[in-house]
Amino acid sequence: MADFDLEMTDKLLSTTRSVRKRLDFEREVPTQVVMDCLELGLQAPTGSNRQGWRWLVVTDEGMRNELGRLYRKGGDEYLAQGLAQARESGAAQDARVFDSAIYLAENIERAPVHVIPCIRNFLPENPPRFMWAGLLGSIVPAVWSFQLALRSRGLGSVFTTLHLRCEAEAAELLGVPEDFMQVALIPVAYTLGTNFKPAERRPLEEIVHVNTWS
Amino acid sequence: MADFDLEMTDKLLSTTRSVRKRLDFEREVPTQVVMDCLELGLQAPTGSNRQGWRWLVVTDEGMRNELGRLYRKGGDEYLAQGLAQARESGAAQDARVFDSAIYLAENIERAPVHVIPCIRNFLPENPPRFMWAGLLGSIVPAVWSFQLALRSRGLGSVFTTLHLRCEAEAAELLGVPEDFMQVALIPVAYTLGTNFKPAERRPLEEIVHVNTWS
Repeated sequence: MADFDLEMTDKLLSTTRSVRKRLDFEREVPTQVVMDCLELGLQAPTGSNRQGWRWLVVTDEGMRNELGRLYRKGGDEYLAQGLAQARESGAAQDARVFDSAIYLAENIERAPVHVIPCIRNFLPENPPRFMWAGLLGSIVPAVWSFQLALRSRGLGSVFTTLHLRCEAEAAELLGVPEDFMQVALIPVAYTLGTNFKPAERRPLEEIVHVNTWS
Repeated sequence: MADFDLEMTDKLLSTTRSVRKRLDFEREVPTQVVMDCLELGLQAPTGSNRQGWRWLVVTDEGMRNELGRLYRKGGDEYLAQGLAQARESGAAQDARVFDSAIYLAENIERAPVHVIPCIRNFLPENPPRFMWAGLLGSIVPAVWSFQLALRSRGLGSVFTTLHLRCEAEAAELLGVPEDFMQVALIPVAYTLGTNFKPAERRPLEEIVHVNTWS
């Protein structure tokens, strides 16, 4: 059972945050580091071991600028509304999150690498929801492993979906075939400092039910 | 940058397999271990920091038997077809996966703990697919972190979705409210041995595209 030093592996799992304001836009990211992290991410399981994924690694500045434009086209209204609602309701933590998300939207092309995970979409039109769990459960673990691997090497990232509101335009830009679905846009950069802390969460007893819900 | 010992954290990310045949059904799992791993899982990020999740931890034998029944009701046909197709096409690795999945289906209630992650489903009817990425991207990272935490402690698990084909019946059994969606059923047990290896994967150059797909 001494295969792992829990102090270290628990730290990885508990301090990998969504990094938006602490991305170092000035520091170059070697492509090899991204590939190493992808290689680790791809060790995550997929339903029926299908591995129906492709990964776009966008480093070209012009392409990142275009993705940034689509990100804002898709997300600006959502983000502005979210911030306004959070302020109105006095939810300070929510307002901080939206403030940080707006900062990211304004600067996302400055992240030296964008990673767009794609999965072959074998679902019928308007599928039952369990199929979505099967499809996205076959790529999101790999995305999150990729993000954990980045964190272990001093890089930060964040799972974003706002550019997907303009997915067709992004697909044309990137050459994504029709039978593949883009799942996220992950900006990648070294972090400004590496001292990330566990986040505040509701106590387990409020959200964990043993045997039955009530 | 020496925050993490990459040999150890890479090992965690590269050797956490879908465990089906190597689950130790005889060994008791202390509830506290599951709670510790859930606490780590819940450090994963969620869209807009919504944390709209609940986690069902099913230890009661009668409930697990019922879940096993629903799992087979939902999955038997799919699994039998998958195995037949894999054998017909001569895909040995696929056949092994389905063989292993059928073993799990026949025995899933013997896993001492079932964990069912649920998320508040705020989507409209037949939502555009980017919304599914946002919703499931807000719980699958936590599920996967939970599974990684289990692995670090000598336990195994596997992300399954077959019981979701009978989600309404499972919801009634477990008391899941209508506005929550079950995302998976994760059987949890100690593993028979802990020497798991990295899996074979297609070479990166076949599935990673730099800047554009072609």
